[in-house]
Amino acid sequence: MSEEVKPESVSLYSVSAAATPEQEAVCIFGTGDLGRSLGQRLLQSGYRLVYGSRRPHSCGPIPPGAQVMSHEIAARSASLVFVCVHREHYDFLETLAPHLKGKVLVDVSNNLKKNMYPEANAEFLQRLIPGAHVVKAFNTLSAWALQNGPSDANRQVYLCGNSPEAKQAVAEIATKLGFNVQDRGSLSAARELEDFPLQLFPEWRLPMRLTIGLTAFFFFYLLARDVIFAYVDQGKDNSFRIMVSLANKVFPIVSLILLSLCYLPGVIAAFLQLYRGTKYKRFPDWLDRWMLCRKQLGLIALALASLHVLYTLIIPIRYYVRFRLAANTISQIKENKTSVFDTTMGWRTDSYYSMGVLGFGLYLLLGIASLPSVSNALSWREFSFIQSKLGYLTLFFCTFHTYLYGWDKFLFISSFKWYTPPGYMLCLVVPSVVLLLKLLLLLPCVDKSLTRIRQGWERTDPEDDSKKSLLAKDCQKL
Amino acid sequence: MSEEVKPESVSLYSVSAAATPEQEAVCIFGTGDLGRSLGQRLLQSGYRLVYGSRRPHSCGPIPPGAQVMSHEIAARSASLVFVCVHREHYDFLETLAPHLKGKVLVDVSNNLKKNMYPEANAEFLQRLIPGAHVVKAFNTLSAWALQNGPSDANRQVYLCGNSPEAKQAVAEIATKLGFNVQDRGSLSAARELEDFPLQLFPEWRLPMRLTIGLTAFFFFYLLARDVIFAYVDQGKDNSFRIMVSLANKVFPIVSLILLSLCYLPGVIAAFLQLYRGTKYKRFPDWLDRWMLCRKQLGLIALALASLHVLYTLIIPIRYYVRFRLAANTISQIKENKTSVFDTTMGWRTDSYYSMGVLGFGLYLLLGIASLPSVSNALSWREFSFIQSKLGYLTLFFCTFHTYLYGWDKFLFISSFKWYTPPGYMLCLVVPSVVLLLKLLLLLPCVDKSLTRIRQGWERTDPEDDSKKSLLAKDCQKL
Amino acid sequence: MSEEVKPESVSLYSVSAAATPEQEAVCIFGTGDLGRSLGQRLLQSGYRLVYGSRRPHSCGPIPPGAQVMSHEIAARSASLVFVCVHREHYDFLETLAPHLKGKVLVDVSNNLKKNMYPEANAEFLQRLIPGAHVVKAFNTLSAWALQNGPSDANRQVYLCGNSPEAKQAVAEIATKLGFNVQDRGSLSAARELEDFPLQLFPEWRLPMRLTIGLTAFFFFYLLARDVIFAYVDQGKDNSFRIMVSLANKVFPIVSLILLSLCYLPGVIAAFLQLYRGTKYKRFPDWLDRWMLCRKQLGLIALALASLHVLYTLIIPIRYYVRFRLAANTISQIKENKTSVFDTTMGWRTDSYYSMGVLGFGLYLLLGIASLPSVSNALSWREFSFIQSKLGYLTLFFCTFHTYLYGWDKFLFISSFKWYTPPGYMLCLVVPSVVLLLKLLLLLPCVDKSLTRIRQGWERTDPEDDSKKSLLAKDCQKL
Repeated sequence: MSEEVKPESVSLYSVSAAATPEQEAVCIFGTGDLGRSLGQRLLQSGYRLVYGSRRPHSCGPIPPGAQVMSHEIAARSASLVFVCVHREHYDFLETLAPHLKGKVLVDVSNNLKKNMYPEANAEFLQRLIPGAHVVKAFNTLSAWALQNGPSDANRQVYLCGNSPEAKQAVAEIATKLGFNVQDRGSLSAARELEDFPLQLFPEWRLPMRLTIGLTAFFFFYLLARDVIFAYVDQGKDNSFRIMVSLANKVFPIVSLILLSLCYLPGVIAAFLQLYRGTKYKRFPDWLDRWMLCRKQLGLIALALASLHVLYTLIIPIRYYVRFRLAANTISQIKENKTSVFDTTMGWRTDSYYSMGVLGFGLYLLLGIASLPSVSNALSWREFSFIQSKLGYLTLFFCTFHTYLYGWDKFLFISSFKWYTPPGYMLCLVVPSVVLLLKLLLLLPCVDKSLTRIRQGWERTDPEDDSKKSLLAKDCQKL
Repeated sequence: MSEEVKPESVSLYSVSAAATPEQEAVCIFGTGDLGRSLGQRLLQSGYRLVYGSRRPHSCGPIPPGAQVMSHEIAARSASLVFVCVHREHYDFLETLAPHLKGKVLVDVSNNLKKNMYPEANAEFLQRLIPGAHVVKAFNTLSAWALQNGPSDANRQVYLCGNSPEAKQAVAEIATKLGFNVQDRGSLSAARELEDFPLQLFPEWRLPMRLTIGLTAFFFFYLLARDVIFAYVDQGKDNSFRIMVSLANKVFPIVSLILLSLCYLPGVIAAFLQLYRGTKYKRFPDWLDRWMLCRKQLGLIALALASLHVLYTLIIPIRYYVRFRLAANTISQIKENKTSVFDTTMGWRTDSYYSMGVLGFGLYLLLGIASLPSVSNALSWREFSFIQSKLGYLTLFFCTFHTYLYGWDKFLFISSFKWYTPPGYMLCLVVPSVVLLLKLLLLLPCVDKSLTRIRQGWERTDPEDDSKKSLLAKDCQKL
Repeated sequence: MSEEVKPESVSLYSVSAAATPEQEAVCIFGTGDLGRSLGQRLLQSGYRLVYGSRRPHSCGPIPPGAQVMSHEIAARSASLVFVCVHREHYDFLETLAPHLKGKVLVDVSNNLKKNMYPEANAEFLQRLIPGAHVVKAFNTLSAWALQNGPSDANRQVYLCGNSPEAKQAVAEIATKLGFNVQDRGSLSAARELEDFPLQLFPEWRLPMRLTIGLTAFFFFYLLARDVIFAYVDQGKDNSFRIMVSLANKVFPIVSLILLSLCYLPGVIAAFLQLYRGTKYKRFPDWLDRWMLCRKQLGLIALALASLHVLYTLIIPIRYYVRFRLAANTISQIKENKTSVFDTTMGWRTDSYYSMGVLGFGLYLLLGIASLPSVSNALSWREFSFIQSKLGYLTLFFCTFHTYLYGWDKFLFISSFKWYTPPGYMLCLVVPSVVLLLKLLLLLPCVDKSLTRIRQGWERTDPEDDSKKSLLAKDCQKL
């Protein structure tokens, strides 16, 4: 709920500075904003701090307690150097190479865009000074966190580097500063770390685009059918329906389609494996990418389903609904009709609501199981039980809910305004196909073959002798 | 939301293979599916890989980049060996014992059922080759995760073993492969780790059975009272009520009972400690088991309470309800009655709903505090404040909500169809007892004694001199 | 959902005791409840255990398998000593100083109140025995967890101390006992650790007080306007409205104010930075404290908003509402009026509900992103996108929802009973101000200046030459 939270332990740590005077020195190259922020935090955690600067006597304000020296002298006084300099100015470091030999160089730099340079900043630095042990670290944190210590999304420090000892040294400092350290392997992971702060939900992009596209399509489709048709055909102004009635049609329709798109790639993959007779062949790229965003598709579908639930539950307090109900009652009295309770209607509507409630309940369960801390506590078998078995059950409930909603409307010509089918009919296509295909896969004979293939068995066709050698290459890419 | 997610870093890691050519070799015994999957991932993370096989020249496809040799030669070339062989074939390893001396053997095996063998696979392996350092690891992961790296429920690698150095070596590999490592102690924990992938919500079994039993009982009980009675007595077909009305009675009833069953064992335990005058005596087995599943009982009760809320909120959009409301209005007009607003009724129903809303709100809070990441962030005092103080408040609100629902219905003979009490009366028994007993425990004199006992004080009866020695034995079992 | 959960691995660990006989000995000073509980767990995890006691032969029951000796002899037999003695009795340890030289002393003590002593217990212990390596640890756990192993809120062991080796030794034991260890730095952090078990939601105190204050004020304000006014003016008993109608006014009002108070300090801070022309000047204390509790303010506001949603959704099943609707219909018929559907009213009410639903949906998203495990998985840019961009959008939706609720009521004199404005008008003041100020900050010229300042740029006034030296001092405090 907050942008920036200052940790409560700041005051404490500044006290601890005095308590551990034997603390070793660290060096920071660069007295810019980043260097200053990091320096302040290091001083608060009890480190002795030396700044290296090109102009040690006119470098602007530095945190009190730190010294400023020339790069050479500063480098000599510490075994660990933070390089808080923009990549464009790395060149000057080359001249310092002899003084940096055997030292740990921490690259904290980020770029403004992805792919600005052919190699990662940290790898470039390592190439400039081959004798030093370069460690990429701290770059994923905000300047605020570097200055004030960890908070909320700023607890993790990712690091990578080729020297385990150098990484250990940096990890110790990060731990002392209050962060959680996660080792991401060798320096070749630096590019990944440098791209990390630039990313804004990359894995959500494709699903979001799909959602926006589907939502826009169904919005205009239903606008034409529900509002414009009424206006053209009967001259009735139904436009107020956009806010609730239309939204409450678009959201469930898109939600159901997205939910079924979660399960479609798994079904396609299964049929592909059955057809190929092996699991060692790579899936087509589009299928791979589709499978990678299933979690996101499911969560967006859950969000839309939740909106559908809220929009449904406010129906009875809407002015329009109350007006219509009262008007109905009044017209019944005036015409002196006595309407009879229709048990079939009672069964149908109650089943329809019940399916919806149960489907949404299960869906919430799936969502909760997707929370990182919950899914980490599950064993693999438990996780796949929830996401696969309960997932298909959810899809079934939601699809059945929609069928009950439709009931026999498809028999009446008045449903097909302007010869178009109602929205709910369109949205039933994909889920019905997914459920049918899944049913096929559950047939004992099909299920048995698939299980064998997934356990590593391969079908070898007599005419296809060259397959094995091909396989080996496929494996590599998988 | 997804079964299997391929991490985005795969391509990166395969690049890193080239970057770290000095990487040490690891060996895998066995070229089956598991061996191949694990090998591929190791190669991608930059390891040199040697397969040990009985038939090095006809062992089927292996990931390119790896070598295949005889077991003996393969074992000699690496200090760490993954044993990707079924337990039934472990015997051949005995002949290799001299070559495996001092090496780290990683047992990744699982069994098909629990208790198939008298000892854990890893312990059996250690007994076969006493000179090696056996580490149990990676067995809790799916084959997919071994091949493609961590994702969702596949981040944790649990390991155990008797040699800290051997565990450290395996932990380093697991970290490099992208997993989080958790040390589970000595090799005697191997059984636990081997049972882990076989389990499917073991701690949820008892609460689920109880829930299903209670739900079935109340379903048929209320079916008899609400549907069958109406049919037999008045010939009325109320069957459509099963879908919503009946469900909305069964769910809250079972929910309240389960919630009170969460708090009953704590109350029983307190009285037992008071009676015994010590906390060092072991509780009976059934009480221990009951206390262990309180969290699960509470979460199931919360799920049912949520369904109750949803079922309640859809009431006004049901066809049956709208029909009845309209019919009421019409009959009022026709009979020209003027009904007067009943303030008591207003108070009562509004209080009833308000209690329900507040109870459910608190209940959601308890549920959120049960999320692993939230409860980890709480201090012990905070956690017990929420789960105990707020928990009893929730129970009180929900019980009071039910009492207000009942109001004075128990006075009318018509409530007792076929001489049976309505469902809500039955469900009030346990919560009322729990709340009464808790009230007793809160009396200052009782509370004081209990606090003293829980701080370690023991009542020593003069006639019971032999107690102390008994106590010592009880402690052990506790 | 449960107060105390016994881990399933207890039996396993007691077996492991036999499996690792070479386990080193640890010593516990003190055979009180804490010493006994901890000892039992150590024995179960396979440690050899020696108790140090003043009266080795009459010290009461100790866990079987442990030995009891005098303090001197016990200290000699182990390199690590748990001090399970109250701080008041630490003095006797001074006499043992020679025997404790070079040993690791683990201080597990807690105090009954904060600030009981001028220095932390662990620092006092270190001062008493300067030759020992004191480590503060385990004090944040409940006695139950010490006895039975980790569960729920009892997984984390925090430790601090001046000797890295000593901390490592304690961390190893804690890991073996099944806990997760978190290093909190040097011994000067001991005070913080000792205060931890005493705290009960310290960061929630201020927001909770504010919430209670605002809730009480608006409750009585609306009670006067809605209930007492009606009674005084028209002699009508509206008191039943307290339970739902009044609650459903107080909760959203307080919720909206709290939500806007989340974003107000950020806006104030921005203007302060703009005015000062630097980010290196410390904010006033009240602003700092305010910023620290934004997350809590937001979560309380979300809880109240959820109650508002539930209270709104039960409206149509209330007796009072049904009575009024029926009465309206009846009176329409009797007076033979035909009311016409008002499209503007349809638009207005539907927009009002729609804004509410979307605002609440976004709000839930913010809440989910605040869960520790979710916010840890986000990059900094993603976290601030959600909490800042989506946060302001949420505030806008909710404010707009309230404006639509008010509509043109402010034009009617009847809204101002007793010359007081309705509650919703009062609650619109703060959010409107926050949104206006934020809009100002988004103006390109203002935004550009602010961005420059936040990147470390400082405005230097010619007349303010002494600023730089002042700055350095400010930095230190920040």
